[in-house]
Amino acid sequence: MAEALTLHEDPRSGNCYKIRLTAALLGLPLTTRAYDIMQGETRTPEFLATINANGRIPVLKIGEGASARFLPESNAACWYLAHDSRLIPADRFAQSDMLRWMFFEQYNHEPNVATLRFWLRFVGEANLSEQQRAQILPKRMAGCAALALMDSHLAANAFFCGTAPTLADIALFPYTHVAEEGGFGLGDYPHIGAWIARVQDLPGFIPMD
Amino acid sequence: MAEALTLHEDPRSGNCYKIRLTAALLGLPLTTRAYDIMQGETRTPEFLATINANGRIPVLKIGEGASARFLPESNAACWYLAHDSRLIPADRFAQSDMLRWMFFEQYNHEPNVATLRFWLRFVGEANLSEQQRAQILPKRMAGCAALALMDSHLAANAFFCGTAPTLADIALFPYTHVAEEGGFGLGDYPHIGAWIARVQDLPGFIPMD
Repeated sequence: MAEALTLHEDPRSGNCYKIRLTAALLGLPLTTRAYDIMQGETRTPEFLATINANGRIPVLKIGEGASARFLPESNAACWYLAHDSRLIPADRFAQSDMLRWMFFEQYNHEPNVATLRFWLRFVGEANLSEQQRAQILPKRMAGCAALALMDSHLAANAFFCGTAPTLADIALFPYTHVAEEGGFGLGDYPHIGAWIARVQDLPGFIPMD
Repeated sequence: MAEALTLHEDPRSGNCYKIRLTAALLGLPLTTRAYDIMQGETRTPEFLATINANGRIPVLKIGEGASARFLPESNAACWYLAHDSRLIPADRFAQSDMLRWMFFEQYNHEPNVATLRFWLRFVGEANLSEQQRAQILPKRMAGCAALALMDSHLAANAFFCGTAPTLADIALFPYTHVAEEGGFGLGDYPHIGAWIARVQDLPGFIPMD
């Protein structure tokens, strides 16, 4: 790959780690540029004007200078990196089913499992607003439901789309393997535990930090 | 396409309409099977065991009988239907950028714009729990931010990924064009209004119901 790849990220974010993990498993060189989201560094006028009008990381920068292009959304950036690789199945149904788990991750998993980790580990329960505090229990229940669905699927499958890892595993791994930092007990989900070990054993695997 | 395609849906759901709209624009025959989510019809033991363990519609059933396969998640079902069609750009960056808007739709748009429509039009404000009521304002603000980002992007683009419609437009159209049913004022977003008219003008377009 000739193009320079730069990941604008916060190293503590699982969404950013997905992209680093994809690049690592595929042996792609990736430069990183760190921001501290707790300090509002992704909401500055410069960031909004040049990197992402949505004020969020990760953003994958592809190329350099005037022709550089910017790709927000972690799973879209993973899709770009994994183009024509073994991490995206070629079969029509398998590819759609992989995306199914990636949409599940953003809709059912991340807003519950990742948000509780962010609130409880990084913001701190004492600093939460009353409105956030009222959401802990619903997010706990929805996060447990997402983990239970994954555990049940992994009872019969080594990886989310069968016998080989795909982007579905990369999308679901980051926030799942640190779910205990958000107060989820992974001991309740033995098949998830075995899958975490399989992902960690993949050639080229890198840890979150 | 030889395979029978059956959409398990609730006709009032914008997520289900995405799939019907994709099939209509591509001229694909699609059978539907209706459920009433308000009556818990997608949480029955039979539905959970045979259609979707996640208890949600839409689910696209592909094929018939013992070899039938089930695909949950609206945007994954659209991806399956639009395989090798003009609705998915072939270019690597364009395809990734299309997915970027589809993930944005599930993360930033649907949980705010669609949920407020569901709560205010179908559940009724008087029937909301205290915890749901506390989320109206945050969801209103996040929904307005999503609509503002779309409006700003559409100021310079006829469709989300340039000059031709893609699945990104199909994913974002359903809940956007009925956002006023959730209390959003579309008059604030003139470029969204013009884009809605362009989508409605597409050959093969079908309305939501």
